[in-house]
Amino acid sequence: MILSRAITLVESALHSDQLIAEKVMEGILPYSGKSIRIGITGVPGVGKSTFIESFGKILVENGHKVAVLAVDPTSQQSRGSILGDKTRMENLASDKRAYIRPSPAGSTLGGVSARTREGMLLCEAAGFDVVLIETVGVGQSETAVKGMVDFFLLLMLAGAGDELQGIKKGIIEMCDALVINKADGTNLEAAKNAQREYANALHLFSAKENGWIPQVKTCSATEKTGLEEIWKMVLEFNHNMVSNGYWERNRAGQRVNWLHEHIRYLLEKRFFQNEIIKGQLGQMLPEILSGKLSAVAKARELVDLFADQSQGEK
Amino acid sequence: MILSRAITLVESALHSDQLIAEKVMEGILPYSGKSIRIGITGVPGVGKSTFIESFGKILVENGHKVAVLAVDPTSQQSRGSILGDKTRMENLASDKRAYIRPSPAGSTLGGVSARTREGMLLCEAAGFDVVLIETVGVGQSETAVKGMVDFFLLLMLAGAGDELQGIKKGIIEMCDALVINKADGTNLEAAKNAQREYANALHLFSAKENGWIPQVKTCSATEKTGLEEIWKMVLEFNHNMVSNGYWERNRAGQRVNWLHEHIRYLLEKRFFQNEIIKGQLGQMLPEILSGKLSAVAKARELVDLFADQSQGEK
Repeated sequence: MILSRAITLVESALHSDQLIAEKVMEGILPYSGKSIRIGITGVPGVGKSTFIESFGKILVENGHKVAVLAVDPTSQQSRGSILGDKTRMENLASDKRAYIRPSPAGSTLGGVSARTREGMLLCEAAGFDVVLIETVGVGQSETAVKGMVDFFLLLMLAGAGDELQGIKKGIIEMCDALVINKADGTNLEAAKNAQREYANALHLFSAKENGWIPQVKTCSATEKTGLEEIWKMVLEFNHNMVSNGYWERNRAGQRVNWLHEHIRYLLEKRFFQNEIIKGQLGQMLPEILSGKLSAVAKARELVDLFADQSQGEK
Repeated sequence: MILSRAITLVESALHSDQLIAEKVMEGILPYSGKSIRIGITGVPGVGKSTFIESFGKILVENGHKVAVLAVDPTSQQSRGSILGDKTRMENLASDKRAYIRPSPAGSTLGGVSARTREGMLLCEAAGFDVVLIETVGVGQSETAVKGMVDFFLLLMLAGAGDELQGIKKGIIEMCDALVINKADGTNLEAAKNAQREYANALHLFSAKENGWIPQVKTCSATEKTGLEEIWKMVLEFNHNMVSNGYWERNRAGQRVNWLHEHIRYLLEKRFFQNEIIKGQLGQMLPEILSGKLSAVAKARELVDLFADQSQGEK
């Protein structure tokens, strides 16, 4: 599939591949952007895969083309693919109207999220009109995903003891909806109670600049209940935000952040791959290791040196 | 106090101050490093302030000079000083053998942790032989603190429901000790039970490269029990790690990371403050915002431009 090949190219660490990838990204740019981008997070065990599979299935049955991407900062450590494993979502993966991309491995979080962003644009250019971006963890990765989506959804469970299940206030503040999963069987009542509690708790947070009041919903990904209502909420959000201008304003801000992130990435790469810098770093390494040289002063010397001689090596 | 003034200088964003600060850091370097650096984390409500106050008090009574610093990534958002509030630790703050520094505000996490590192070296040069670095949150800030300390301690509570209180496996893996606080009164038995459970759980993690098996302790910061034992454990760790060479190896690695972090900081600063780059960024901004220009391609153009003309502007 050409989409997979294009994403592989974008994920490549080879300089020659990256130059081609840039051309590809420039070429597809006019065809990208026409999707609803939804970030989905929640602690392990909350049922993210099942939710994405059932939710994705509802969407394709409503005539949408759905792409699923993942930002998984833990995968490079454990070397396992906690996320992005197609076999987890067999039912959706086998559907021609859906595309599931495993999370890119072997990179820093910054790298992973940059590649995911480019993958998202490629999916859009390939005609997918809903992009679901899954992440795990409490912190960094959520911020990265929030920075590339239109709508951010936090999955939770009812009755897991402490009020907000160890989820940081910052994560709650960035979500547009809080969805209590596994609202089925004997758990249904607890889920409804939790819904009321969370709805009250969310009122304590200050209003968002876009005027949206985060919603609390319940669903059962296994029994496929509550999912249509979640999609309706997303469409309502989309409608309101397009009307008040926030939709485009948010995306515009994300584009500028993306530019800045990519600049940082290229600056660093060019610095640390510079032959003269490499030589100097190697020479001073023993005295940095032993603590004889001040890291702060040497950093300035090296950055000065880089600026002085970078003209010749371009 | 001259120490406070030096730290304020290091925290200054002014270019002229930074150049002086670098000289100060170079000058004090030979006098730094002679402390035991302990990172302390735990979710809000676990009793970190009380623990640090009681633990610090025990240390000064044992003849040590104790400095307390904080890395608080949330403070710049809420604008309040959740950490570093001297009034929280009145008893310790009023002790001449202790120094408490509020957390630096108004910067990115990277900036905060760099300033904290320099503050730590200044405290050492001023004669403090134990430095306690407090942090909050589950994620980024722990990694930053882990990167500047010798010993990392995670405070927990017994019987808070779920096995590891929403604390990510990654945080558990980086800790050298897990301390169950509030082990007093009717809570004592629960704390002892939790101690056994956690000790068993920690055995499931793979052995650390330094040969240290993370310990699980209980204490009551309010009743001042168990604190001597925690300090004994830190001293045992110190003794073992100095013997097997890990102590110095770990610090050497931290110094190199510090150099790299500072290089990144200076590179970015020089780039974004460059007049020609600023002009170019301003010109292309409308088309970046609207999505007409590719962020990836423009980032490369700007970095090329920076390298080409930076020679002249030094």
